[in-house]
Amino acid sequence: MTISTTLPIPNIPASTFPKVVIVGAGFAGLKLARKLIKKEFQVILLDKNNYHQFQPLFYQVATAGLEPSAISFPLRKIFHHAKNVIFRMAEVKYFDADQKRLVTDIGHIDYDYLVLAMGGDTNYFGSKNIEYYAAPMKTVSEALYIRNKVISNYERAINIEKVENRKYLMNVVIVGGGPTGVELAGAMAELRNTILPKDYPELSFANMKVVLIEGGPELLGPMSTEAKSHALKYLEELGVEVLLNSRVLDYDGQIVTLNGDVFLETQTLLWAAGIKPNKIDGLSVDHYAPNGRIYVDSQSQVKDCPGVYALGDISLLIEEKYPKGHPQVAQVALQQAENLAINLIALQKGKPLKPFQYKDLGSMATIGKKRAVVDLPYLKFQGLFAWLTWLFVHLMAILGVKNRLFVFLNWSWNYLSFDPSLRLLIKPKYVRESERKELIEER
Amino acid sequence: MTISTTLPIPNIPASTFPKVVIVGAGFAGLKLARKLIKKEFQVILLDKNNYHQFQPLFYQVATAGLEPSAISFPLRKIFHHAKNVIFRMAEVKYFDADQKRLVTDIGHIDYDYLVLAMGGDTNYFGSKNIEYYAAPMKTVSEALYIRNKVISNYERAINIEKVENRKYLMNVVIVGGGPTGVELAGAMAELRNTILPKDYPELSFANMKVVLIEGGPELLGPMSTEAKSHALKYLEELGVEVLLNSRVLDYDGQIVTLNGDVFLETQTLLWAAGIKPNKIDGLSVDHYAPNGRIYVDSQSQVKDCPGVYALGDISLLIEEKYPKGHPQVAQVALQQAENLAINLIALQKGKPLKPFQYKDLGSMATIGKKRAVVDLPYLKFQGLFAWLTWLFVHLMAILGVKNRLFVFLNWSWNYLSFDPSLRLLIKPKYVRESERKELIEER
Repeated sequence: MTISTTLPIPNIPASTFPKVVIVGAGFAGLKLARKLIKKEFQVILLDKNNYHQFQPLFYQVATAGLEPSAISFPLRKIFHHAKNVIFRMAEVKYFDADQKRLVTDIGHIDYDYLVLAMGGDTNYFGSKNIEYYAAPMKTVSEALYIRNKVISNYERAINIEKVENRKYLMNVVIVGGGPTGVELAGAMAELRNTILPKDYPELSFANMKVVLIEGGPELLGPMSTEAKSHALKYLEELGVEVLLNSRVLDYDGQIVTLNGDVFLETQTLLWAAGIKPNKIDGLSVDHYAPNGRIYVDSQSQVKDCPGVYALGDISLLIEEKYPKGHPQVAQVALQQAENLAINLIALQKGKPLKPFQYKDLGSMATIGKKRAVVDLPYLKFQGLFAWLTWLFVHLMAILGVKNRLFVFLNWSWNYLSFDPSLRLLIKPKYVRESERKELIEER
Repeated sequence: MTISTTLPIPNIPASTFPKVVIVGAGFAGLKLARKLIKKEFQVILLDKNNYHQFQPLFYQVATAGLEPSAISFPLRKIFHHAKNVIFRMAEVKYFDADQKRLVTDIGHIDYDYLVLAMGGDTNYFGSKNIEYYAAPMKTVSEALYIRNKVISNYERAINIEKVENRKYLMNVVIVGGGPTGVELAGAMAELRNTILPKDYPELSFANMKVVLIEGGPELLGPMSTEAKSHALKYLEELGVEVLLNSRVLDYDGQIVTLNGDVFLETQTLLWAAGIKPNKIDGLSVDHYAPNGRIYVDSQSQVKDCPGVYALGDISLLIEEKYPKGHPQVAQVALQQAENLAINLIALQKGKPLKPFQYKDLGSMATIGKKRAVVDLPYLKFQGLFAWLTWLFVHLMAILGVKNRLFVFLNWSWNYLSFDPSLRLLIKPKYVRESERKELIEER
């Protein structure tokens, strides 16, 4: 790693404050940067994108319920009045812990504290075919891609005479029985039940299957039995085929092969099954757990790596209560970030540090309109009130008054009209290699 | 043209009504289709996209004021309750006037009436360099591309040390002094004056030029002298450099060469200078005027081509009052469509036909916030009231209650906050060949 060849990132104002470099503006990175506004640090926040993405609502972008912009927030806007926070759009390459230097595609930067919060990407568990043909949903663009793929599949199906030959274009198969998969399946089923038949009177949607595949014996793994059973009931009432104890063995872009010689015909395999922490060069192999997460101590510091911290999905803190580490969810990321902000300030003032303690605020998932399952620490409930709770909690979590307002209006509109008007194939759309080939073959 | 090889478009319901095939769902094509709802025709509406685009507001998409979805409307939604109108997403190839058959990429269709309403595309007047490097704005995706290009240029500029070397990334040059160019220039200047400095405190926007280039001696050619002079005044007050009697001779992606050895440094050349009617094979060369428009009679029928009609930007009706044909604007397209709808119905009933007569309702353009110029048949006014008039007229012209509501809310928000929050580089963005090369070079 010849660091000497890189130049420093230009136009970083001089500062006497210690430099905190944050990699990634997801829940963890953004929260930390905001907590350090007007504190005695110079904060440099780096991200591949110039906006923060609100992951919990990706599935609504994918199902034409929300615009990408409604759940994406421009990072520069957040820091208009924060003179000590500097944002740069950059891809990180590696860092050198001895030199305390991070190298990116726009140059290098020397840090006092480096915070790794790069989050995770889709985990295909090594299947090249699935990675090539399936559609992931880990970014807002990927969610938008799913929307475009589904809509263009119907525009194609309508030009096919034989009902048989349309199936693979109309069926939607979702892999992963976590909240994302469950919410996506519910919303897709609702599209099929309410809107698509109006849009495509020539197609019979009795032929359209929405299938949800889960490897384990039940949906929503960590949630309560009540939540699990209700989620399953709600999905089945919406007409979702739920396949439990099923694993995807292979996929060729048309046929999904499951264990037990089960085959599903679909052109649309949505992969919400696994997460793989993003990596950065600079750590040795023994910093990583087998699942790719980075071992941290109770201050979120990377083991034996003073000045380097890891937050959120990429971090792994082993505790008695969490022998496999904390769940890879927004709540953990946000709480770790708050804890680290407090500790960085304490460090500077030579005050004692506060170990991270996760406070589980509960979890929830929504299934279609008017139904959700909610597990709170001392209270579990399902149905309409759970749905309203879900709406409120997510609305409040959205960044920015405008986004919050527009999401609220969209939800009200969609709820009242039962007809999101976002079924637009704004082209040129995000074409993945597999799709491009296919499109050419079509011509 | 071996028509025998193509198959008919599948799944078109049988109908005893005469078939009206409409090519293009712009202002003209969509209006005609809507006028024929529940009339005794089977209407087949074809378009490249599955949505109608509201062209007059493209410039607001380009300047991050509106989302594409706010000015795009899903075509299928419009015809949910119109059993006699069928939509297909398709690219037309050619038609055979003798066989009365239109051939598309999804098959052929036999028509009783064929209506050509393909509109126009950007006219680079033969300059390959300009076509390759300049950014057009004739579709909502092209408008979105402009937004992404401008934003990513600032994200790049911020990583350049020397002010000199940033200029070409920061300057914006707009070609064409019609309403589009004028409105785009005004909105870009406002971005520079209000929002960009907040987003990029490290950059000095005194260095950012917004230049508007017009080949003729004045802006807004066909409008009144009052309108022209006020538009010029407003633009200059916003800090737009207006170059009249200037023609772009060449552009290499960095330097714009104008007549009189004037050179402008910019990476962002926005081309709003000309329109070129879209063509379809099937007509002989003498059906076309030198400018590519199709000669039609006062019933919008293509000369010597019974059953084939042309509407909107592609049509050319020579009249005493309009020796060069009607202006290529939405009003003409809409009125032609209404007239044709009436005449098609009359034809079926053997009633006399009504010749098209253009009623000029006036024209308007807005320059930044709170200012516009309006020419009505008997009334001309400028300034704040003109701007409110512009807002109202455009709002009412937008299709769909939801889009209208959301555009209104966006406008109110942007006006009050002076800060559109749509500065998102949602990737992978529309990358044109020229840009792609450049991005690779950057790496």
